[in-house]
Formats: sequence, structure tokens, C-alpha cells
Amino acid sequence: MNSLVDLNADVGESYGAFRIGADEELLKLVTSANIACGWHAGDPLVMTKTVDLALRAGAGIGAHPGFPDLLGFGRRTMQISPAEAKAYVLYQIGALEGFVRSTGQKMQHVKLHGAMYNVVSKDQVLASAVIEAVSEFDRSLILVGFSGSQFLGLAREAGLRVAHEAFADRGYAPDGTLVPRTSPGALIKDAGTAAARALRMMSEGLVQASSGQDIHVQADTICIHGDNPEAVSFARAVRQALESAGVKIRPLREFIA
Amino acid sequence: MNSLVDLNADVGESYGAFRIGADEELLKLVTSANIACGWHAGDPLVMTKTVDLALRAGAGIGAHPGFPDLLGFGRRTMQISPAEAKAYVLYQIGALEGFVRSTGQKMQHVKLHGAMYNVVSKDQVLASAVIEAVSEFDRSLILVGFSGSQFLGLAREAGLRVAHEAFADRGYAPDGTLVPRTSPGALIKDAGTAAARALRMMSEGLVQASSGQDIHVQADTICIHGDNPEAVSFARAVRQALESAGVKIRPLREFIA
Amino acid sequence: MNSLVDLNADVGESYGAFRIGADEELLKLVTSANIACGWHAGDPLVMTKTVDLALRAGAGIGAHPGFPDLLGFGRRTMQISPAEAKAYVLYQIGALEGFVRSTGQKMQHVKLHGAMYNVVSKDQVLASAVIEAVSEFDRSLILVGFSGSQFLGLAREAGLRVAHEAFADRGYAPDGTLVPRTSPGALIKDAGTAAARALRMMSEGLVQASSGQDIHVQADTICIHGDNPEAVSFARAVRQALESAGVKIRPLREFIA
Amino acid sequence: MNSLVDLNADVGESYGAFRIGADEELLKLVTSANIACGWHAGDPLVMTKTVDLALRAGAGIGAHPGFPDLLGFGRRTMQISPAEAKAYVLYQIGALEGFVRSTGQKMQHVKLHGAMYNVVSKDQVLASAVIEAVSEFDRSLILVGFSGSQFLGLAREAGLRVAHEAFADRGYAPDGTLVPRTSPGALIKDAGTAAARALRMMSEGLVQASSGQDIHVQADTICIHGDNPEAVSFARAVRQALESAGVKIRPLREFIA
Repeated sequence: MNSLVDLNADVGESYGAFRIGADEELLKLVTSANIACGWHAGDPLVMTKTVDLALRAGAGIGAHPGFPDLLGFGRRTMQISPAEAKAYVLYQIGALEGFVRSTGQKMQHVKLHGAMYNVVSKDQVLASAVIEAVSEFDRSLILVGFSGSQFLGLAREAGLRVAHEAFADRGYAPDGTLVPRTSPGALIKDAGTAAARALRMMSEGLVQASSGQDIHVQADTICIHGDNPEAVSFARAVRQALESAGVKIRPLREFIA
Repeated sequence: MNSLVDLNADVGESYGAFRIGADEELLKLVTSANIACGWHAGDPLVMTKTVDLALRAGAGIGAHPGFPDLLGFGRRTMQISPAEAKAYVLYQIGALEGFVRSTGQKMQHVKLHGAMYNVVSKDQVLASAVIEAVSEFDRSLILVGFSGSQFLGLAREAGLRVAHEAFADRGYAPDGTLVPRTSPGALIKDAGTAAARALRMMSEGLVQASSGQDIHVQADTICIHGDNPEAVSFARAVRQALESAGVKIRPLREFIA
Repeated sequence: MNSLVDLNADVGESYGAFRIGADEELLKLVTSANIACGWHAGDPLVMTKTVDLALRAGAGIGAHPGFPDLLGFGRRTMQISPAEAKAYVLYQIGALEGFVRSTGQKMQHVKLHGAMYNVVSKDQVLASAVIEAVSEFDRSLILVGFSGSQFLGLAREAGLRVAHEAFADRGYAPDGTLVPRTSPGALIKDAGTAAARALRMMSEGLVQASSGQDIHVQADTICIHGDNPEAVSFARAVRQALESAGVKIRPLREFIA
Repeated sequence: MNSLVDLNADVGESYGAFRIGADEELLKLVTSANIACGWHAGDPLVMTKTVDLALRAGAGIGAHPGFPDLLGFGRRTMQISPAEAKAYVLYQIGALEGFVRSTGQKMQHVKLHGAMYNVVSKDQVLASAVIEAVSEFDRSLILVGFSGSQFLGLAREAGLRVAHEAFADRGYAPDGTLVPRTSPGALIKDAGTAAARALRMMSEGLVQASSGQDIHVQADTICIHGDNPEAVSFARAVRQALESAGVKIRPLREFIA
């Protein structure tokens, strides 16, 4: 049994009059907060409020940079250069740093959003550009990425601390990637099933893929999707299952070396 | 004779394929660079490049936050709340900090842009919100503002270092404000006249207003408008006039206490 | 008793992943739909779907142009020139026309949104610019504006058909303007009260101002605020009260001459 | 010798304070104007002015829709759905229609911009979505596309008039596609060479590919790139070469059946 894990959620995704997510409730259940930085979601007032909520809840604060695509919520692949990838990440981490520093606190981690998260898992050149951005900004930041990805391997080599992320509420393909959102089996719709999968990731390091076979997955942090209407009940179920089994749920900063 | 002054210019105002300004040449002539932060102008690649250019030229680096109005180049007044003003400034200073920190250097100053610059000169509540943002981000930053403004007085009281800014290429009204851009006499169109006005600001602390009378003006830093096609020749003329008279032109960080 | 009235609501205010409003239900209750045009809210997919929903519900379709301020939902005053006002309205009416024409139908009306609505009620030059835009685009469009405003008077003079709009769910000041949203009494919070006020507007042409006195109000169309969580129940209450009293609720095109 | 051809140029690409292109001079030399619609470039004031300039120059007016990517000038591929493609085109054609109709004139054509132009040349489903948008908006519009593309074949089948576009200032690969901008030989840098290539397209229907071999190309309209600093001299050279050889240069509406 892996005895320590972090739960993370995307928060601060509202924009002006447009409200998304149950941040306040969710932040009581997770230990790391991925805060949108104003590009695919979020705005300066929302960032102010979300940093404050996260700090009061004791969650680790993370930047959640995405593509410059508010209309597509950062979920659409855009063709960008490595120089753009690096600059886009520096801009957004920096923007969040404005709010974190104004509270006298420290940022804990960086997790890319949506299509940018997926793109760096596959493209080594863009991956390196993002790693460069994070390293140059602050070498003490923890980089959260897809469990087992080359992206995290490269980050390790570059001297960054990394956290392998697993998904309790998403289906896995036999090759260890996620079932695409457009395919059947992409989403685990039952909170109990999600909780059981999270627990098995911790106890056995395994998850059942869509093909039925078991695959290995390392879970330093488990993602709770914040834009899911059931996010809060999923988070609660996962949390209870893990805690009942003796797994301690802690922010990344407390156990990632 | 005031023997030390800074010359500042707005730079990094290009956006994607849209090019504005002669940054490279201008940065050889001024000592402080106000770098647009992506809202009224500028983008992450432009910020990357402009920070680099400014550092190589030895110019002090400043954040140049503006209204969220790329279409209006931040020159149109928008009705914002104090909470928004504070958050907008924190966001933009932070975003620039991303690029500055990645170079291992330090930001020198903050100067608001366009309509936001004007609004805080008149509205004490918004002024205080901006001062709060800068103070909470980094108390060692120098705040550049309109010479003699209440804004700078409040910043002083809040413990910030301030720099009084004068305009060699703009007409002054008898009350010490600038002649609006839409009125005759708003712009000094001759580089020699601008240079002479800059020199007199330093030697006598005076400038001739549009009414003909002399008014007092304190000039810690003199603005060279970067979006003026003549910006480079103006900067050169002002620089030569001042240096010939023995005025030393230095970045703010070297003499603002 | 004025026997005919239109009910209008702002719809199509969602933007990408950001959902706002109960458009489907609301469109069964109102007779005119003010469709956001992508600037303060709305996007092309939302416009496609909303035009379709409105047509199926038999509602008259209107363009709802606003300021270029998605972040502020078009509710913040921006300082724009008459040329900008005219161009901004032409752009947005045109954009909606794309979707309306693709269905083979006709646009019924234009109603400005938020701060732009308020600004033209007070500024005659901007009002004229907007009227010019609508006239040049299509002289058969009905212009909806604040009941009794000079804006509507100017539109009449320019040969446009106009609809006087009243608000059942907003407080009125003694001078006939709305109580600002930031003041007490701005919002009527009870559906029954709103319904009673709507009915009295029709039967007596009066509404009780915040001071207690009655003021005259002409109501060709009554606004139901779509971003109100209670919008649907308010619409239902107003509709029932009016219909019970024999007032026919019809789209503007059926009775505005 | 093909005796009739149109010259087209992208114009109206300025945005607010950001100026691009020599529209006024270029519009004296070309016969069709592709006007940016505010997404990848252009804004309502620029559209107003550009429609006016184009009409006074006698140029056919075309909508030039692009991706929602001002930062990337619409040149970056974005992953969009057919429903989005259709809606994005309707929105932008409609927006331009606002300005055209306000002058009492008619739009002549639609030409997609940048990455959207390229994407529909390769993706039949997106191509069909765009064709649907144009057809539903106005079946009399001429669709301009890459010479010989399946996109134009589909548009023909759908009953639209089409114009095959060739490029005098771009290199061609042996397979008839353009040499990518990032490869050597992408741009013809000499106005004389561009003019000679344009002439040969008309006289022989051939252009020499980068491999040295001749390939067929149908040129109903030849593109002059407006963002090229040499655009005006290229347009002049192409125009003179064609006119000297007896080719008449006319707007598409005068000869596309």
C-alpha cells in the first residue's frame, strides 16, 4: 500500500459573470488546487479569490496554464512553437505568482491544462520548452504530469521534482493513455467505481483498462475533474475510500522529493 | 541644476504579427523600459524579446499594466472597481515577472499605461488599490507616476519609492496637467523644442504651459513616447541636450531613494 | 387597458464551456429574444443554437450588441467615439444576421446591452450613431430602448419603428430612470410583485417609484432578465398575470407600427 | 492565352492602433479585396474604412474569415469541429455584411484566411461545413479557393460559383501544393520573377515547381500578399506584365459564371 497521495482539482475556472465549478466545496476535499491563469479560463478577480480560498483550505497552490483559447476552454489543440510554449507558460505562471506573492505565500506546483497537457505528453520538443520555463522561473516548483509520461522523465532529468498524476474518473486504454473524451468509456460515471479505482491505484498500483486487462499506474496525485457536476461527490467518495484504507491525503509539497 | 535624470519609454508594444515601435534603437537611448504586459499591447514572445533587449541595453525594466482593451490600446477609460484595479495590476506585474525572473534579473519599476495612468491620477480610491497591488507584490519596486500627483503622494505614504514623471514632448495646461491629445498644443512636434523643454525642467524645474506662464515640474524621469514615429530622434535630441549640460542620465534604481 | 404587449429576454449569453441562462425554458414564455452577438457574451455556436431555439418557439429575433468587454459582460462603461459606436453595432447586427439569414428568416429588432444601452440613453451623439447603424443596415428593424428616452425619440425622427421598454423586475427612481443595481431597491425580488407591476403598467400606464409616487411608463415590451436565477418563474408569473387580465402577449412585429 | 484574370489582396488587417498593410495603394492595383473580419485581424472601424476604400477603388468586396486567433494572425492550425467551422464562417461573413449593406452595395466573394484556408483544402468534412455556411448565407457569392482543390470541386457540386486562386509570389511543390513558408523557396522575392510567373500562368496555364518541372495551374484570380512590404511593387509588376500581354484584369463578378 502506497500510504500517501495528493488529490488535485482544477479550480478558479470562472470568468467574469460566467461561473463554473463548486470551488469552495471542492477545496475542502482536495489537497492541491490547479488555478486557471486567465487564458483558457479564470480572470484576475477570480484568481484573487481562488488563491485565498485555496490557502484557507490548506491546499497547495498550482498554476494551471493553457492555450490562449477562452472560446475553446483550452481543450483544442493549437499548433504552437517551442518558443511560444515556453513564453505562454512563463506568462501564466508569472501572472498567478502576482496573486500568490501578494499573500506572502509560495506556489507549490504547475500542471498544464487540457490540450496543452496532452500535447506535451506527446511532443518532446514542446515538453522541453515547458520544462525550461518552469526551471527558469523557480526550480523548487513541482511539475505535475501524466503518470509515466516522457514529459515527467525529461523534467526529472532537468532536475525538477515531479508528480505522477492518475485519473480515477477516466477510462484508460491498454497502452496506458486515457480513453479520448469522444469515445465510449471515457468517463467513469459512478462515484463508487471511481473511488474503488483510486484505492486500487494506491494499494496495487494497477487500474483496469477498457480492454479488461490491468495496467500499471503510479499515482502521486489523483485528479478530480472540477467541471464535472458531480465533482464534489466524487471527491468525497475518493477521499473516504482512501482514508478508510489508511491512505493519508496530503499536498504534494509534503511528500514529493 | 538637477544633475540626474532617467529617460523612460514604452516598449514591447507589438502583438503577434502586429509590429509597433523602434524598440531596439530606442532602448539604446533610454534608461528605463516600460514593458507592455499583454493586455493593451505586448504578448509573451514580445515580452521575452523585449526583456532581453532591455537587459542588454542596461535599461531598468518596468511593468506597464493597462486596461483589458487591446482594441483601444488601453487608451479608453473603462469603469472598473478598486478590486479590479488591484487584481489587474497584480496580474500584469506578475506576468512580466515571469520573464524577468527567468533571466535571473530584477524588475525596477511599475508605470501604468494610458487611460489607467490617467484614471489613478484623479481617483484616489483606484490609486490606493494600485498602490496596494505594487506594495504587496514587491515593496522595493519604484512607482512611476505623473509628477506632483496625489497618486505619488499616497504611494510615498504607503512606503513606496516613487519617481515623478515629466513629458518633454507634451504640452502642459496652466494647472499642471497635460493638454489632452485631442486639443491643439497637445504634442510638441519639434525635437529641438522638446530637448530644450527637457533641459529647462532639469535646470530650473520649470516648463512653459500653453497659456505662456511657467509652471513648476519635478522630473525624476522624462517620458519619450515610443509610438511616435519620431521617437528615436526625439530621444537622441533630449539625451544630447541633457548630457551637454552635464546632466547624467541613469536608470531610476541608481538614484531614487 | 393596453391590450397588447411583448415580453423580451436576453438569451444566448453562454460562451464556449461557460453556460448562462435557462434559454430553452425562457423562450417558451417570452415573445422576443435579444441574442448576444459574441462581444459581451455569446459565441457563434451559441448563436446558431439560440436562433434555432427562438425560431422554434416563435419568438421575434433581435440583435443584442454590447461593448467589447467579455470580462465585464458588457456592463462597464467604456469611452467610445460615435464612429466606434456605429461600427460596433453594425458589426454585431451583421454577425447575427449571418445566422438568421442562414435559416431563411428575418431579424425583428435590435436592443443594446448593458452599459451600451445606458450610455445611449444619456448621450445624444452616441444615440444618433447607433440609430444611423440600424437605419443603414435595415430600416424595417424595430429599435427597442428605454421607455420615454430621447434615444427612441431620435430613432422615431429618423424613421425607425421603436418599442418602449419597461422593467417589471427593477425599481424606478422618481425621475423615471432605473434605480442603479448597486443601490437598495434596484431589484424586485418577488415574482408576484413583478407580475403586479407589469399588470399595472398595462392597465394604468403607471409604476410606483422608490419614493412611493406613481410615474408614467409606456410599455410596448417588458424585460425579463435572463441572468436572474428566477427568470423562468418571473416570466411565468408576469405572463399569467397579464393573460388573466386579457392582455395579449405578442412579438413586437405583430403590433409595432 | 487566358484573357481575363482577377488580382486579389488581403486588406483591412490593421487592428486598433496596430497598423498593417498599404491598403490604399494596393486597392488601386487589385480588383478584389479580401477584408479581414475581426477575428485574426481587422476591427469594426478598420472594416468600415476598408469597405469604403475598396468600393471607391472599384474592387470586388470579399469576406476573409479566419480562426479566432488574433495573437497568431490566424496562421496557426486549430482543431475545430464542422459545426464550429460553419458557425465561424457565418459569423464573420455576416459581420462584414453589416458594413457592406450599410453602403448599399453587395459582397462579391468569400476567401478563407491562413490556416483555415489550408485546413479546408485538406479536410473534406470541414470543407463541406464552410460551403454550407456560404450557400446558406448567399448562393450568389463566389468562393475563392486553392486552384484545383477538392474544396472548390465540392463547392461547384453544391451549386456555388468558384474562383481558382494561384500565387505569383509563392513557390509550388511538384504535387501542386505551395512550398511551406518555413521551407526554402517558399517566397518569390523578386517582383519581376513573380510577374513572369503570373504571365505564364495565364498564357500557358503552367508554373515551374521547386523541382524544376512544370505543373498545371488554373488562375481565375492571382493573390498579392498584402502583408509583404513589397506588396505594392509586386502588384504593380504583375499588373503591368499581364496588361502588356493583353490580359484584362477585372473583378471576379465580371467573368466568373
